[in-house]
Amino acid sequence: MAAELDNGPLVGLVIVTHGGSGVCLLAAAEGLVGPLAASAAVSVSLPDPFDEIVRGVGQACDMVDAGAGLVILTDVHGSSPFRACLSMLDGTRPVEIVCGINLPMLIKVATVDRRGLRPVEVAEIIKEVGKRSIRLGSELAGKIGQPREERH
Amino acid sequence: MAAELDNGPLVGLVIVTHGGSGVCLLAAAEGLVGPLAASAAVSVSLPDPFDEIVRGVGQACDMVDAGAGLVILTDVHGSSPFRACLSMLDGTRPVEIVCGINLPMLIKVATVDRRGLRPVEVAEIIKEVGKRSIRLGSELAGKIGQPREERH
Repeated sequence: MAAELDNGPLVGLVIVTHGGSGVCLLAAAEGLVGPLAASAAVSVSLPDPFDEIVRGVGQACDMVDAGAGLVILTDVHGSSPFRACLSMLDGTRPVEIVCGINLPMLIKVATVDRRGLRPVEVAEIIKEVGKRSIRLGSELAGKIGQPREERH
Repeated sequence: MAAELDNGPLVGLVIVTHGGSGVCLLAAAEGLVGPLAASAAVSVSLPDPFDEIVRGVGQACDMVDAGAGLVILTDVHGSSPFRACLSMLDGTRPVEIVCGINLPMLIKVATVDRRGLRPVEVAEIIKEVGKRSIRLGSELAGKIGQPREERH
C-alpha cells in the first residue's frame, strides 16, 4: 500500500513471521479496522538461506518507508526472521523492532499517530498495547475460575 | 492430533482466530518445536453466523479434550471469536482462555506440563510467557536507540 498520504509520510509497518501468520494477521486487522497504509508482511520459510530472508525483509522495508522510518513487527526473538529484522538496524533510517506480534498490536496501528511520532515512539505504544492485550478470559469475564453462566 | 498419550490425558489446546493466523501459528510453532499433541486451530470468518462459530469452536474442543480440560488461545478480546470462546466456559469441563495469542506462547506449550497442571495453571504460564516475549528489538540487541553495527 502507498507509503505516503495527505500531509507527510507515515512511519511504515513491516511484519516478518515464520510462515504466513503475518499475512493473515494483517488481513484480519484490516478486516476489523480498515486498510493499514504503508504496511507489508513478509512470510519466511525456515529453509530459506539467511541472506534471502534479509533481502526479502529489506525489500519490504524499502517499499513502505517514505522517509519517516519503520516499525518492524516480528513473531519471536532469536531465530532467523528476527535476526533478519535486526540487520535492518543499520543506521540508514530510524527503525524499531517489536517482538511477539499479536493482533491487538495491529489494531492499534490504525489509530496511533504514525505521522507525528517517531518509530521508537510508535513501537513503545504498540508494545504496551500488545502486553496489555494478553489476558485470561476469566479475568475479562469479570470472574476467576470456571464461570458457569457464560454460554451465549 | 491425539489428545491422549502415554500416562494420562493432556490439557487440550484450541486456537481460535480471525482468519487463518491460528493455523499458521500452529504450523510455525510445530516447525520450531515439533508436533504439539492434543491441539487444534479454528479459523473464523467474520461473516459466519455466531452460532456456527460457536459450533466450530465446540467441535474443536471436543476433539482435543481427553478429560484434562482445555486452554483456548484467541487473538483479541471482545469480538465474535472471543465470545464463542467464552461460551465454552459453561462449567461442563475445566477451560481457561488466553487472549492476545502470539508465537512464543505456542512455543512454550511444547514444554509446559500439560499432564500435571490444570488448565488455569497452564493458561497463567502461557499468559506470562506471552507478555514477557513482547520486547523491543533495541532492548534485545542490548542497546537503546538506533544501533549501527547490527548488519549481519
